[in-house]
Amino acid sequence: MTAALTPDALGALLTQLRSTGPLVHCLTNTVVQNHTANTLLAAGAAPAMVDHPREADAFARIASGVIINLGTVAPHQVESMSHAARAAQESGTPWVLDPVAVGFLPVRTALADELLDLGPAAIRGNASEISALAGTSSGGRGVDSVDSSEDALPAATALVERTGAVVGVSGERDLIVWRDAADAAAGSTSEIRSVFLAGGHPVMQQVVGTGCGLGALTAAYLGAVRAGAAAESSAALESSSALAVAAAHAHAKAAGSIAARTSTAPGSFAVAWLDALATLTPDQLQEEVRIEN
Amino acid sequence: MTAALTPDALGALLTQLRSTGPLVHCLTNTVVQNHTANTLLAAGAAPAMVDHPREADAFARIASGVIINLGTVAPHQVESMSHAARAAQESGTPWVLDPVAVGFLPVRTALADELLDLGPAAIRGNASEISALAGTSSGGRGVDSVDSSEDALPAATALVERTGAVVGVSGERDLIVWRDAADAAAGSTSEIRSVFLAGGHPVMQQVVGTGCGLGALTAAYLGAVRAGAAAESSAALESSSALAVAAAHAHAKAAGSIAARTSTAPGSFAVAWLDALATLTPDQLQEEVRIEN
Amino acid sequence: MTAALTPDALGALLTQLRSTGPLVHCLTNTVVQNHTANTLLAAGAAPAMVDHPREADAFARIASGVIINLGTVAPHQVESMSHAARAAQESGTPWVLDPVAVGFLPVRTALADELLDLGPAAIRGNASEISALAGTSSGGRGVDSVDSSEDALPAATALVERTGAVVGVSGERDLIVWRDAADAAAGSTSEIRSVFLAGGHPVMQQVVGTGCGLGALTAAYLGAVRAGAAAESSAALESSSALAVAAAHAHAKAAGSIAARTSTAPGSFAVAWLDALATLTPDQLQEEVRIEN
Repeated sequence: MTAALTPDALGALLTQLRSTGPLVHCLTNTVVQNHTANTLLAAGAAPAMVDHPREADAFARIASGVIINLGTVAPHQVESMSHAARAAQESGTPWVLDPVAVGFLPVRTALADELLDLGPAAIRGNASEISALAGTSSGGRGVDSVDSSEDALPAATALVERTGAVVGVSGERDLIVWRDAADAAAGSTSEIRSVFLAGGHPVMQQVVGTGCGLGALTAAYLGAVRAGAAAESSAALESSSALAVAAAHAHAKAAGSIAARTSTAPGSFAVAWLDALATLTPDQLQEEVRIEN
Repeated sequence: MTAALTPDALGALLTQLRSTGPLVHCLTNTVVQNHTANTLLAAGAAPAMVDHPREADAFARIASGVIINLGTVAPHQVESMSHAARAAQESGTPWVLDPVAVGFLPVRTALADELLDLGPAAIRGNASEISALAGTSSGGRGVDSVDSSEDALPAATALVERTGAVVGVSGERDLIVWRDAADAAAGSTSEIRSVFLAGGHPVMQQVVGTGCGLGALTAAYLGAVRAGAAAESSAALESSSALAVAAAHAHAKAAGSIAARTSTAPGSFAVAWLDALATLTPDQLQEEVRIEN
Repeated sequence: MTAALTPDALGALLTQLRSTGPLVHCLTNTVVQNHTANTLLAAGAAPAMVDHPREADAFARIASGVIINLGTVAPHQVESMSHAARAAQESGTPWVLDPVAVGFLPVRTALADELLDLGPAAIRGNASEISALAGTSSGGRGVDSVDSSEDALPAATALVERTGAVVGVSGERDLIVWRDAADAAAGSTSEIRSVFLAGGHPVMQQVVGTGCGLGALTAAYLGAVRAGAAAESSAALESSSALAVAAAHAHAKAAGSIAARTSTAPGSFAVAWLDALATLTPDQLQEEVRIEN
């Protein structure tokens, strides 16, 4: 699997995302709903924000992927998120958990703990959130992270072991951690794998929703992989999931690198980032992001 | 009436919109609230998003127009939408229904059916939504349409006949369908009229909220026409309503054509579209949009 | 204190805002949540939108400042706003009230009246809102103001006298009114002070959320001042609060002046305004805004 996580493979998945146009069901915070929808549309996917408790489960069953982001948890959304995750698990729709600001705040922390048992395909957050979700720290302040992604490797590993999900930790370098089912089947002693992705630009921290949009993009890539892998074995699908999560992170980071050449002031950077999500080519993706160990 | 739906008449209404500055009460999905407000402000109207169940009816009575968009239906919004439509009907405030994603999802589909009986002045959606609302298909997936506006002519006609509303179907060409009261009074056999508006640019599909903003703009134009037509007969007002709906669609499409000359990448296109909504002149409106049968 | 409200002092506070990076807890309307978060991030602060009734009070205790904006009051937000204001008052977190559209609408008007007794550090609105909040008029229509800030001086003075808060009234010239505790202690007969800030550009009225963002920025500056003034007397802190409110208004206005040189069309102006919030220097702040009596 590690061999397969190559620049070429990431570029090929970008093409697959655009040809399949996955429909992403977004149960996300009201701060970033608009930006998340534009992120998905620009990247080549399709968004739908259906969060009424009596509609969320039906939509999760027909979507290509689901993102559940805990940034604002209105009471009716808490209920919808739980329904959607259960429906996604039952129907085999890959879903992603973005545990914004868990740890200190009681409603979302309890909800996240419940959701972890419903089979997320991926978990994505910053280092503080991933550490808080794993129970190894008390969390950051809002969406800010006070730790580096490197610091979160033990917490990410613990979450992989608990849930089987691929874990993405965004930061100056993004960290991707997953369980390599092929290794495990072969009796290897080292079944947890990880890589770092380097690229992007610090101004991304000054634009709200780049991280939340990445969570939705992760669900889109998981949906695109699943569409192309119906006939594959579950072990192959698990490996493909790691590739999908890495491709989403690479797509967002590469667009950040490109956009920062237009502007590093936050208003115009945000516009350029959406443009770059749309215009990014597989070749550019491979040039702008480095895979590191 | 068809004679009156001329490029000149559309341009004159643009001027009237800006001179009257109609106040549009928006009960709309949380994904596009910000974009809808900016769309109205740029075009020359004023937005207000009042969606508490105990405030929505009072505001609908004093507004120039009301848009009810079903994109996200939080439980409290479902209640507010029903109140606002009833208050608008009672007070004579023209209101517009945007039936986002009806058909498959139960809460909004039942709500849309209830709202259809409360006298909408206009109904606006893409072809899939209009077909689903009319009961002739099961709907699209989220805000995407899988049909062309031409395909939706029978469904739009059925909705005109059921409700008396003007129906707008957005697509590569926008379709406007209405009942010509003057013809009906004269005993004509052909009382349903329709035109197409050509223009715009496909990148509008990659920016969330251009369609939803158009629904709000439709309510703004209906308010502007009503402000200028207090003394007219109800037949004249019905004809004016068709012109108002067409003018809203033409305004949005013309701004799209102009903005696409600045950029066809979605981030910068969205910015240029808002700019063009504000700077569009009646002459540009007439140049950029073609009225077709 | 009036002597202290100098261009130099405003510039120094801009530097202090960026060095302290205050965390602002935003209970605000869903229309502007995204724009408010980007406003804070661009200016140098950090946003968090935590509005679940069981999470809002805990977060208000740890935040640097709290903004409570009544623009949309979903039922669960009404409850959260009350909790957050009480928690802020108990814990000494400065909080700001932005009474959007009070006067005519019953839920927010009753809520605003309740909140006025919970010790806001500042109140910010347009002239119509401030007049309605003080009970001297019935309010405007939505976020629009039909009065000038000069007209609102009596209403602002009444609110200062009732609550002790600093009151900011935005308009072509922004008005800041406060009680000068040093004067009061010295037995002066003139303990209510006021200044006007001139600058900015009318196109700011065509971009939704510039006023709401200013309310959040006011909470950020209050948090920054408090961080630097832990050892000061309460009289000094009260004077510093007036300076903080003025600095927030000056920051927003100066960015508006600068952005309007890039574009006065609303889409591109909004982008340039965020850029200018981030790049504004203390020298530019002093050049772009005039303090007037």
